[in-house]
Amino acid sequence: MSTTQVIVLNGGSSSGKSGIVRCLQSVLPDPWLAFGVDTLVDAMPPSLRDAGADGIAFSPDGEVAVGEQFRTLDAAWADGIAAMARAGARIVVDDVFLGGPASQQRWRQALDGLRVLWVGVRCDPAVAAAREIARGDRPSGMAAAQAEAVHRGVAYDLEIDTTHTEPLDCARAIAARV
Amino acid sequence: MSTTQVIVLNGGSSSGKSGIVRCLQSVLPDPWLAFGVDTLVDAMPPSLRDAGADGIAFSPDGEVAVGEQFRTLDAAWADGIAAMARAGARIVVDDVFLGGPASQQRWRQALDGLRVLWVGVRCDPAVAAAREIARGDRPSGMAAAQAEAVHRGVAYDLEIDTTHTEPLDCARAIAARV
Amino acid sequence: MSTTQVIVLNGGSSSGKSGIVRCLQSVLPDPWLAFGVDTLVDAMPPSLRDAGADGIAFSPDGEVAVGEQFRTLDAAWADGIAAMARAGARIVVDDVFLGGPASQQRWRQALDGLRVLWVGVRCDPAVAAAREIARGDRPSGMAAAQAEAVHRGVAYDLEIDTTHTEPLDCARAIAARV
Amino acid sequence: MSTTQVIVLNGGSSSGKSGIVRCLQSVLPDPWLAFGVDTLVDAMPPSLRDAGADGIAFSPDGEVAVGEQFRTLDAAWADGIAAMARAGARIVVDDVFLGGPASQQRWRQALDGLRVLWVGVRCDPAVAAAREIARGDRPSGMAAAQAEAVHRGVAYDLEIDTTHTEPLDCARAIAARV
Repeated sequence: MSTTQVIVLNGGSSSGKSGIVRCLQSVLPDPWLAFGVDTLVDAMPPSLRDAGADGIAFSPDGEVAVGEQFRTLDAAWADGIAAMARAGARIVVDDVFLGGPASQQRWRQALDGLRVLWVGVRCDPAVAAAREIARGDRPSGMAAAQAEAVHRGVAYDLEIDTTHTEPLDCARAIAARV
Repeated sequence: MSTTQVIVLNGGSSSGKSGIVRCLQSVLPDPWLAFGVDTLVDAMPPSLRDAGADGIAFSPDGEVAVGEQFRTLDAAWADGIAAMARAGARIVVDDVFLGGPASQQRWRQALDGLRVLWVGVRCDPAVAAAREIARGDRPSGMAAAQAEAVHRGVAYDLEIDTTHTEPLDCARAIAARV
Repeated sequence: MSTTQVIVLNGGSSSGKSGIVRCLQSVLPDPWLAFGVDTLVDAMPPSLRDAGADGIAFSPDGEVAVGEQFRTLDAAWADGIAAMARAGARIVVDDVFLGGPASQQRWRQALDGLRVLWVGVRCDPAVAAAREIARGDRPSGMAAAQAEAVHRGVAYDLEIDTTHTEPLDCARAIAARV
Repeated sequence: MSTTQVIVLNGGSSSGKSGIVRCLQSVLPDPWLAFGVDTLVDAMPPSLRDAGADGIAFSPDGEVAVGEQFRTLDAAWADGIAAMARAGARIVVDDVFLGGPASQQRWRQALDGLRVLWVGVRCDPAVAAAREIARGDRPSGMAAAQAEAVHRGVAYDLEIDTTHTEPLDCARAIAARV
């Protein structure tokens, strides 16, 4: 019997989270909803990406900075995900813990009382940087900047490494723990 | 002072909801999150779109049928949107009330206690069908099938008609009521 | 009998060319291939969009500047389109004549000997700017900057105005001349 | 000095061609235009994908069938690519040789007189099928059906295998032969 209610995947840009999520939706027997940090960013007004907007800024070297407005909406978003899970939907969330353990703590508070599987998605920084070139739709440098930083101080139930393992195999390893 | 917490737009496929939502995000002074029925459908596993999956099915003539699994996830989704609004995020939701007043009733329950602006987005069926051809990414027939059906028995604070009015002007009319 | 081999649509950003092209493919009895300036830009290496790359640059105020490398590839592209038409494919091309009559002259040379229908796609600059907001995926300002400039000194067989006319009706007007 | 004018990559669906193409555009010193079979399919009217349309049909088991209309446009497309190369543009083409050696023969005729590098992109069928699930945007079964069939009887200057090699490394191996 599946008892996990929320799966949280944390990993840097181009570490392979999205492919794993799609495979998870395919291999898990029940229907799981998949939401990611991209879902939230796409839901925000474009003006929050403007310079000096206190929203979210992607610098040319791959750094990502978030401001107060972003954090407020991000917190509301996490509360919304938690409410969906409490209403009975199984949910996979992928995120990039730019704040490391503080990011995890925010999710812990929002998901309080729910059964959560915490998964770290690692990838060798050089390989992630190469995949960033291959996908061609991300600012150059994000993959390398985030590959290790997002995991520092974060605690997981399971860690997977996509450097030499296909997304489907990673998904199966996660599904075995759900 | 803005007191509305959630704007719900209801209208058929190709009635112009998405363009209005983007304009709303541009003209409203605060940042509003925008979610639509497409956000939910994209979050579901592709298998829910398979024949006989009890999820969501698009027939060649433009009819859309939803099953029990879809309705369960849809209800959880509405609860999640409500939780985001209660946590302080302003939210624009666009939806297609395939169930008419029953769809509205489900949203009413989920959004209980929140200040909601209900907006009907109408478009002449023939014009909506023509715009469906122009966008080229929707099954033919959805626009005509939904244009009037989704409004029957639904109550609004404001109705707009996109047949002869640009999305930005529609958005301004809505923003004036927020 | 259809005798036109190539339809060239020229108009500013957000004037409604893409919607008209999709409608043309729907209303014309034979299969027509549709290519646009976006097809070419997408085919170029992303580095041509870097600052100082001599490729194509989009400035924050909506201006578009193209360099020598872009022009070389653009000329080869036009020769390729012409070769497809000479090989028997019917083709709709949409473009933005940033160089005005010089842009048209380059197409005239490439399409030499082919039966071409030249169509100007106009839109009131304020309306095009409003539609730019509604679509949400273009740098702000392009629509207004290009709305009238791209038509100066250009000769057409047919001019249409999308300000108050739906894409499908525009397409029918064009199809009647093919 | 670069003497190759056209690089043709042939491989099954989900074999990794697109990622290699983006990496090639990044590592090759000159700007190369990238076109694929998807560029052509996107340029066709949607009606060519209708049942019985004599265009292109994707069956539920992953088989792809093309009709007379598709082949006519495909031949014109190849002539267009050749003309772009003769006009001085360097071009990477990715294709799926559904017709095996006959497909290659059509390209050979179109590219007559140009210096072409023929590259086979192989991937273990099971791995390609797994990646098809991870990307989530292709009909299930195409990857397995095409993985080996498209290479039978085709002659290459270079063959690469993406099963255990990253796209960037594959691109470097190709670039070394350009």
